[in-house]
Amino acid sequence: MKAVILAAGLGTRMGKLSKETPKGLIKVAGREILYRTMKILEMEGIDEFVIITNPLYKEKFGEFLRKNNFRYQLVINEFPERGNGYSLYLARPYVSERFVVVMSDHVYEETFIREALKGKGLVVDREGKFTNTEEATKVKIEDGRVADIGKALEEYDALDTGFFVLEPDIFEIIEKLIREKEKLELAEIVKEAGLEVFEVSGLFWMDIDTPEDIKKAKKFLIRNAIKGSGDGVISRYLNRRISTKISEVLVDYVEPIHMTLFSFVVGIIAAVVAFISPPIGGLLYQLNSILDGVDGEIARAAMKTSKFGGYFDSILDRYVDFFVLLALALHLRPNIWEWVVVSLAIFGSAMVSYSTERYKGEYFVDIYKAISQMKYLFGKRDERIFLTMILCLIGRIELIFITLALITHIRVFVTVCLVQKKEKLPK
Amino acid sequence: MKAVILAAGLGTRMGKLSKETPKGLIKVAGREILYRTMKILEMEGIDEFVIITNPLYKEKFGEFLRKNNFRYQLVINEFPERGNGYSLYLARPYVSERFVVVMSDHVYEETFIREALKGKGLVVDREGKFTNTEEATKVKIEDGRVADIGKALEEYDALDTGFFVLEPDIFEIIEKLIREKEKLELAEIVKEAGLEVFEVSGLFWMDIDTPEDIKKAKKFLIRNAIKGSGDGVISRYLNRRISTKISEVLVDYVEPIHMTLFSFVVGIIAAVVAFISPPIGGLLYQLNSILDGVDGEIARAAMKTSKFGGYFDSILDRYVDFFVLLALALHLRPNIWEWVVVSLAIFGSAMVSYSTERYKGEYFVDIYKAISQMKYLFGKRDERIFLTMILCLIGRIELIFITLALITHIRVFVTVCLVQKKEKLPK
Repeated sequence: MKAVILAAGLGTRMGKLSKETPKGLIKVAGREILYRTMKILEMEGIDEFVIITNPLYKEKFGEFLRKNNFRYQLVINEFPERGNGYSLYLARPYVSERFVVVMSDHVYEETFIREALKGKGLVVDREGKFTNTEEATKVKIEDGRVADIGKALEEYDALDTGFFVLEPDIFEIIEKLIREKEKLELAEIVKEAGLEVFEVSGLFWMDIDTPEDIKKAKKFLIRNAIKGSGDGVISRYLNRRISTKISEVLVDYVEPIHMTLFSFVVGIIAAVVAFISPPIGGLLYQLNSILDGVDGEIARAAMKTSKFGGYFDSILDRYVDFFVLLALALHLRPNIWEWVVVSLAIFGSAMVSYSTERYKGEYFVDIYKAISQMKYLFGKRDERIFLTMILCLIGRIELIFITLALITHIRVFVTVCLVQKKEKLPK
Repeated sequence: MKAVILAAGLGTRMGKLSKETPKGLIKVAGREILYRTMKILEMEGIDEFVIITNPLYKEKFGEFLRKNNFRYQLVINEFPERGNGYSLYLARPYVSERFVVVMSDHVYEETFIREALKGKGLVVDREGKFTNTEEATKVKIEDGRVADIGKALEEYDALDTGFFVLEPDIFEIIEKLIREKEKLELAEIVKEAGLEVFEVSGLFWMDIDTPEDIKKAKKFLIRNAIKGSGDGVISRYLNRRISTKISEVLVDYVEPIHMTLFSFVVGIIAAVVAFISPPIGGLLYQLNSILDGVDGEIARAAMKTSKFGGYFDSILDRYVDFFVLLALALHLRPNIWEWVVVSLAIFGSAMVSYSTERYKGEYFVDIYKAISQMKYLFGKRDERIFLTMILCLIGRIELIFITLALITHIRVFVTVCLVQKKEKLPK
């Protein structure tokens, strides 16, 4: 299936940004709006893109499309003032079967696109949870088809999401309309065709019109990036609230790997400081724990995740934990039997991660997804670090090792039991 | 596709075994010959089995088939003395498309069956690497078809593997032959039909005729079970030579999980003893390392592998390593700075496993398969344990910690570099 992207419009409300940059190439959370849409479409099997733009933006789109290795046709609309209906008409020579039409200035979450591709006609949203309803194009539906469409409709059933799945016979209707009118908008085509509607409600999509819209979309994408991670209580109710704020600021400027390294450096500094002053070291350790979320949030929100990034981050986390605990132990100057407890705590911290990762290596699923009880098991990294910080602050370093030596190994033991219990169930 | 299994013959050369047990139900390396064949066929997509047996063995086969949840039809040949050609004829009402015919007393390795299923006609082996050629049925081939077949053929091209992929029209030939003869062997049908031959050479398959054959097959299956494991040098040239011998003895009597627990107990004893006497502890630790291979060998050879088994074994290995190193450290009574080295060694030992397992969890492939250089990287468990034993024997405990602290972290560092290098390569 091919996708036609309408990108010939001249952004007028974006302030100085739009003078140089077409709306589709404005970055939202570290990636161009179109990169996002096209990458998701590509993952869902769209194998070629037909981009309609105006002569002014030709160069910029060409460069963007080449850089990202998309398979594309760039079509120039010499008369952008004739409306986006006319732009769509120019795609006619390039499509011969069912195709997707999508606006270049709409941001969609992945699930939205995945759902929308299952439908036919105009994709509408009855909820418009994330959209400025006033500005949106409204749709009146009758018998599953568009009865009326427009921004000013007083009575309406749903919002136009700017996403269409069309058959080539639509061009006959467009041809007829073009003969009658100098300027043709997509909405007029939709109405004339009495297009079927397909509902995808409640998911994130947004028409990016103003700099405020960019901020709003960015905020959503960062929040959406923490879904499904095996977060502990501290992460959920404390760390993520801070890390997402940091990510919102940094996502446009920082690469995930740099954040990984920065957070590691903070961790190592935490270890060095902890040796001299456990309370300050403990606070820095907690800062490392917060920053530890940022690289992943940025990477997912900006569609910059990499397997190596995830791998490298995990290894560095283990080293930070080790060095902080070792530094605290050295501060404590334990006797030989206290060293046994320290060793148990150090080894146990590594084993918590090992026991969950080894599961994934064996079963090829995340243990938190496979075994729901794991979510409620205390002793994840964020929880251990928070506990360490608190005990550093109240000056009970020895308690850190005693509790960690207990918690970590109990956690590993329970994990093994849960894995075995699950294995025994009939499949 | 269905598979017809010919199991009506009365074993005559198995000694007292065959009086009670049909040949197909004799255990080779902890599993009935038929369990092995049928499980592999099932994995390869065979969805129903037609088993032809005689009235004497009816009960035993029924019990076996029910216990293992196979989808089957049990067909009784009231006249087993009429030959296995007659047995095959009895399968006629149950097959309507291409089907497999296989002997109940042949052991095949997995790859053999996978290859054989790609062919048509009689599957032959030109090498007979594992088979007693004297006893085997020989095949003379002309133009890709059977020209002659028999045990006594003087000139022949290949051996009959007892594995066939047939079309239902074979039954017309059988019907004709049955009218002419009271006793009908499969070989006569093959010859009369001028069956196509399909070559699968050099892989393991064996006709189990005598108790010696059972031993030979068991030996092969155990040896075959160590293929593809990420073994270090010590494992390859020392541990496996001993562990496979142990596995050969134990495979018929011991469950893999019991071996896992036994090997763990030996490891814990090694730790306790190491605290008092490092040389003896070191030797016991090396014994644990050898025994550590047995559970996996038994499990694979007996087709008893389980994900939990692999998972549990890995966790226990980490604990054994930890306790042995901790015990040796306590024996050494280190000062505070020596404890730093001990901690690095303990943590590093866990990290070697973590860095390879985390890879599998992220990339969903074994790191030894994905990155070939990993095989040559020193510091795998078998190598670390052997080094520990040697240094225990010569009384240089402190050197254990110094070398482990270095080797393990260098290994983790190199692993991360190799992973990154691989990620950078174009896919």
